[in-house]
Amino acid sequence: MLRMKLTFLSALCATLILVGVVTAHESKCKLPRGIRNEIRQYQPLVESIFNQIVSGEYAGKTWESLLDFTDRFGPRLTGSKQLEDAIDFAVEQMSNEGLDNVHTEEAIVSHWERGREWAQLVEPFHKNLPMLGLGKSVGTPEAGILGEVIAVESFEEFENLPAQLVQGKIVVFAPAWVSYGATGRYRYESASLAAAKGAAAVLIRSMTPFSIGTPHTGTTQYEPGVRRIPAAAITVEDAMLLLRKFRRGDKMVIHLKMDAINLEPTISRNTIGELEGTMYKNTSVVVVSGHMDSWDVGTGASDDAGGVFISWKAVSFLKAMGLRARRTIRAIFWTAEEQGLEGVGVYEQQHADNEKKEFNVFFESDSGTYEPTGLDFSGNEVAQCIFGEIAKLMPGFEDFRYTDGVVGSDIGNWVERGFPGVSLRNKNENYFWYHHTDGDTIELEDSGALDKSTALWAATAFVIADLSIDIPKNVVDYSYNTDRK
Amino acid sequence: MLRMKLTFLSALCATLILVGVVTAHESKCKLPRGIRNEIRQYQPLVESIFNQIVSGEYAGKTWESLLDFTDRFGPRLTGSKQLEDAIDFAVEQMSNEGLDNVHTEEAIVSHWERGREWAQLVEPFHKNLPMLGLGKSVGTPEAGILGEVIAVESFEEFENLPAQLVQGKIVVFAPAWVSYGATGRYRYESASLAAAKGAAAVLIRSMTPFSIGTPHTGTTQYEPGVRRIPAAAITVEDAMLLLRKFRRGDKMVIHLKMDAINLEPTISRNTIGELEGTMYKNTSVVVVSGHMDSWDVGTGASDDAGGVFISWKAVSFLKAMGLRARRTIRAIFWTAEEQGLEGVGVYEQQHADNEKKEFNVFFESDSGTYEPTGLDFSGNEVAQCIFGEIAKLMPGFEDFRYTDGVVGSDIGNWVERGFPGVSLRNKNENYFWYHHTDGDTIELEDSGALDKSTALWAATAFVIADLSIDIPKNVVDYSYNTDRK
Repeated sequence: MLRMKLTFLSALCATLILVGVVTAHESKCKLPRGIRNEIRQYQPLVESIFNQIVSGEYAGKTWESLLDFTDRFGPRLTGSKQLEDAIDFAVEQMSNEGLDNVHTEEAIVSHWERGREWAQLVEPFHKNLPMLGLGKSVGTPEAGILGEVIAVESFEEFENLPAQLVQGKIVVFAPAWVSYGATGRYRYESASLAAAKGAAAVLIRSMTPFSIGTPHTGTTQYEPGVRRIPAAAITVEDAMLLLRKFRRGDKMVIHLKMDAINLEPTISRNTIGELEGTMYKNTSVVVVSGHMDSWDVGTGASDDAGGVFISWKAVSFLKAMGLRARRTIRAIFWTAEEQGLEGVGVYEQQHADNEKKEFNVFFESDSGTYEPTGLDFSGNEVAQCIFGEIAKLMPGFEDFRYTDGVVGSDIGNWVERGFPGVSLRNKNENYFWYHHTDGDTIELEDSGALDKSTALWAATAFVIADLSIDIPKNVVDYSYNTDRK
Repeated sequence: MLRMKLTFLSALCATLILVGVVTAHESKCKLPRGIRNEIRQYQPLVESIFNQIVSGEYAGKTWESLLDFTDRFGPRLTGSKQLEDAIDFAVEQMSNEGLDNVHTEEAIVSHWERGREWAQLVEPFHKNLPMLGLGKSVGTPEAGILGEVIAVESFEEFENLPAQLVQGKIVVFAPAWVSYGATGRYRYESASLAAAKGAAAVLIRSMTPFSIGTPHTGTTQYEPGVRRIPAAAITVEDAMLLLRKFRRGDKMVIHLKMDAINLEPTISRNTIGELEGTMYKNTSVVVVSGHMDSWDVGTGASDDAGGVFISWKAVSFLKAMGLRARRTIRAIFWTAEEQGLEGVGVYEQQHADNEKKEFNVFFESDSGTYEPTGLDFSGNEVAQCIFGEIAKLMPGFEDFRYTDGVVGSDIGNWVERGFPGVSLRNKNENYFWYHHTDGDTIELEDSGALDKSTALWAATAFVIADLSIDIPKNVVDYSYNTDRK
């Protein structure tokens, strides 16, 4: 094991030199030689961490833990007993592993339940329409809603429809898949847009580039002051069928039944376990994170038990290896992410007053833990230079991608405001095939890919946490962005 | 247009010479030069047929018709009004196209309805289990079945379980996917096997090598004298989850609700339209076929509207081109195939007495109409030699694959008994991803691939129907095989 010999004073000097002297660019970093040399000394340690996790005694263990966890608790919808059971389990296990300051921090979060639901085309022919109600959607009346169908491809097309045509109808929005960001607007905005024109319900085309008759859930949003109407996702195939038939002038009637209900907000918990720093404890913390909750379909293995487990195991394995950095590495498993980043929102508020001192860098994995291809990074120019040097240590992942404020979902607000952020790049080209579906299960997770992800996470977090200097940041003041999805 | 000048007498002579003189082998065909020359003279005609369908005035029309049809009628479950509407539509359209002897032949067939259905794991955690009841399954009592779970991977594993363990349980069969033939046994046999040991219901792993949380339906079978218990397919992912949990000793309880019902048998119809032969009308018929019915999920575009439409359009386009062969080319759209080859079974019985005279060759497409790669053929050695010469005419598809009695599903009994049979080979590697699911829709069908399939079907059927000689056959006597799936 290599441990740095720099003292606190030398660390302070290095920071001053760095910040005062260097004007870094993505293409041309002028880091002081001392910093470069310091980082390069971590090479043997990084390789040791990789070896132990990828091919040594920890190989396969991230996947095994993930399998045990998803089999044990299944899907972990916010408000469900099984989410809280999973949190209790994580606390117990992290304590058993000897992690430091294992605890939870409460957050009042939304409590939506799906209940029984179905949709059926009943005119001009009968066809079951596989569907998933959208999170936070209201239900239908007990008898369901029997409504004639309007189908459009875009908001623009919908805006051109006269309100009297929309009145009392079930409106199908069938936007072509572009990206989760662009196409996702239809999941959020369609219900209130349609309700404002008098629609009875909305059905949206599932957010995916590929389908085997698979509906995809996810939250919707209701605008204040607009009547709340039921909103559900149907399959790509059915959305296109209904759109074609509507355009041909076919009269269609759908029977939609949803028992969905928004209950009183409930208490859930963000889950925390640390590898406490030797020099700094509750300052300059390096956060590694994923979210504990999932949708109530599949088992949320990819979204986001994978992110939870590479974060959790990164800390556990470092602990088991007897490694301890200068700064604290804090694993956080956010709750109620799927409800609209609710758990992290509470945490952010609770830690806002001291955040510039408390946090150094935020890691989050929430875009799959397929075969890793490296790390994404956001931070200022000096931070990029330092991170670039650290990335060079990682065997097989020597480069990184600069993402200019776009890293993660839960940590997004911090990163947008100038905190350095790290997320896992991986071969997730098919991520949205499975996203928020019954196909999000352990079958998507590969043991070798998880080992590499955990190793990359552990080694990068460790070097950052142990460096003589903080990764620099330019943080704008805290303001809670209530519009975040 | 090329038309052969051989008379009936010369045709008879050629047949006698051929059968008497030739001993053909797959590798070494000794066809008389006259036959070879005769076949080769069709080359310009075959190319003209291909050109007109693939890049000429018929290009794109098979797909357009298929789209219109599946959008118009949706899924076509046996016993449904929409299946009978689709049959009426085909009759009307084929009549409008000027096809000969357009009519239907009645068949009394099964009438199963799915009704509402759902399954939910309720212990040790809650999880909806996407499912599709199996065709012909009985329903559950009104309140559903609440049963503890037993899960096995194989029949062997199940046989080793003591009956008292199985009594009253919901048994999950989770066989690994091998092939539709091998793994399909679990769909047919599990219900009665489990019932014989006292099980309350069975859930089988869906028959597919790939899943996005997608259940696959299909018929099950009840053994006479064994109690009929509800049978449904669950997803691959859930089946494996339940199997793993059972093996770990977790107590699991599932609530299964199925309103499925077997109604009185009903009358459906096989649908027929012909291009009548110039020389033979109701003898030596060349049949081109697919099945009209589908499951009640998706729109049955691939299973088997594709097969119906390449057969239908092959005949329609030949008619529109002004071509007419010596023999009749008969398009048949079977009904109730999915119920267990019921429509064709009735047709076969009705045409049994005269079958050796009535039929020459049977074509069927029921394994997808993806990009075609050629034709499969079954027939005796001389038939193979002749078919090989015909295949050489087909631009881009000059070879064929000999399949020794294994061709098609509906026509399988005829082919097994020695009639020459032809089916479409195509790039259907992913066929079972979609098979019997809500993903079996128009999205699976490609316009160019359909054109090529229709062209190959039309040209091959035409040459066979127009040759001076019949394709020879060694037919064993008719016997209706009630075990056919």
